[in-house]
Amino acid sequence: MPITGAARLFAILGDPVGVVRSPAWWNDRFAEAGLDAAFVPLDVAAADLPAAWRGLTRLRNLDGVVLTMPHKQAVVPLLDALGPLARLAGAVNTVRRRADGAWEGEMFDGEGFVAGLRAEGHEPAGMRALQVGCGGAGRAIAFALARAGVTELALSDTAPGRAGALAEAVAAAFPGCRVATALPDPAGYGLVVNATPLGLRPGDALAVEPGRLSPGQVVADVIPTPERTALLDAAAAAGCDTVTGRAMFEGQARLAAAFLGLADLGG
Amino acid sequence: MPITGAARLFAILGDPVGVVRSPAWWNDRFAEAGLDAAFVPLDVAAADLPAAWRGLTRLRNLDGVVLTMPHKQAVVPLLDALGPLARLAGAVNTVRRRADGAWEGEMFDGEGFVAGLRAEGHEPAGMRALQVGCGGAGRAIAFALARAGVTELALSDTAPGRAGALAEAVAAAFPGCRVATALPDPAGYGLVVNATPLGLRPGDALAVEPGRLSPGQVVADVIPTPERTALLDAAAAAGCDTVTGRAMFEGQARLAAAFLGLADLGG
Repeated sequence: MPITGAARLFAILGDPVGVVRSPAWWNDRFAEAGLDAAFVPLDVAAADLPAAWRGLTRLRNLDGVVLTMPHKQAVVPLLDALGPLARLAGAVNTVRRRADGAWEGEMFDGEGFVAGLRAEGHEPAGMRALQVGCGGAGRAIAFALARAGVTELALSDTAPGRAGALAEAVAAAFPGCRVATALPDPAGYGLVVNATPLGLRPGDALAVEPGRLSPGQVVADVIPTPERTALLDAAAAAGCDTVTGRAMFEGQARLAAAFLGLADLGG
Repeated sequence: MPITGAARLFAILGDPVGVVRSPAWWNDRFAEAGLDAAFVPLDVAAADLPAAWRGLTRLRNLDGVVLTMPHKQAVVPLLDALGPLARLAGAVNTVRRRADGAWEGEMFDGEGFVAGLRAEGHEPAGMRALQVGCGGAGRAIAFALARAGVTELALSDTAPGRAGALAEAVAAAFPGCRVATALPDPAGYGLVVNATPLGLRPGDALAVEPGRLSPGQVVADVIPTPERTALLDAAAAAGCDTVTGRAMFEGQARLAAAFLGLADLGG
């Protein structure tokens, strides 16, 4: 499908943006659906977000924007409206231009992660979960795991106070879930989640000690690129089932497409 | 070629932007050259240009912008530098981000029109030319025709004073060319140019009276879409050679690509 002058536009804003998978996924879906639309990466530094955002909202053929780090929380005060998941997470990953012209954000990192787990055959309801990493995406994933029915959620983070603050917020919203802070020791959990950036760069430390993993555990990583992180390789070697960042990415992308009124994409 | 997260971006800004041919031409060239790059249309109203421009300059992977109506003159005060053709025309159609970060504009409407004439086998040097329409693109085309060596340039416009002002400016810059204002009567000219918007919409009046055309004249139109305007059909029926807006478009696009450092595109 060639892009014409009448194309509708979608974009992902990030820094770094070079590693994102979104453009290929969305443009493939547009081609399959026969839509005259394009999805492009926009490389925007944190300090430039307000001016860039004001400019982007003047593009009348821009219908939606996906946000990745470091913009997910910073964009919130620039928006006109927030959906319920975004209000809970205090962050957004998808923004749409509504028919009334308002820019409305919603957060699908958590629901997309859970959708990815389920698509890979792992139902989180009833599981005991350890999540390492409680910033950005981690906040959304913790709420989504509790909403999906994990019986216990252990939260770990190297930043002082961050795991505790998230544990309190999740426990308040989901009283039926046992939420606590923990060391990043995976032994005994049915589900182990890496929600840190560890694994993006070669030579990164592993988020959990692989010698403490054992067969039958599910180890899920949020890192989109490389798809097979060192953590997942070590987990597979230890006999665990592994779920890559691609599963989360595709779960997020399908939810974002529906939110943007493109419900038939990648369904 | 799929667009990746590391793609370089180029765009055309206009209102209306739906009629432009640029995205298909540029994206075809990128695909031929194997470049990870995308060219997208941006629909920006005249009043929104300053805010949109400030935002676009924050996109670190945006390397160049093509401008079409109504932005060619309005963007000038927003730029850091102008090339020589842009200074003469008081307008730009292409802007690049230089290595030093400055945004520099240049104007290829006139040179692109002349390149298109030559590509179709019509050398303007030595010809007597009538040009109808002295706004935006018309200003640049008049200077380019004089620079290319037409011996006489007759300028016509319905806006009071506009043809006269342009005639004075062109005569001052090119003393060897006979420049004057004229009625839009094509009889006797070797080259007849429509540089008005007439022909963009069905039912538009013709820029010149076709009954006054005769075999052997060259009639050139700047209208990009539809490619065959009513004027060109009438001129062909009268035995004239015709040059469509596509020739001008391709001439402009090749010059813009070279200015943007993409010299191998469409060469």
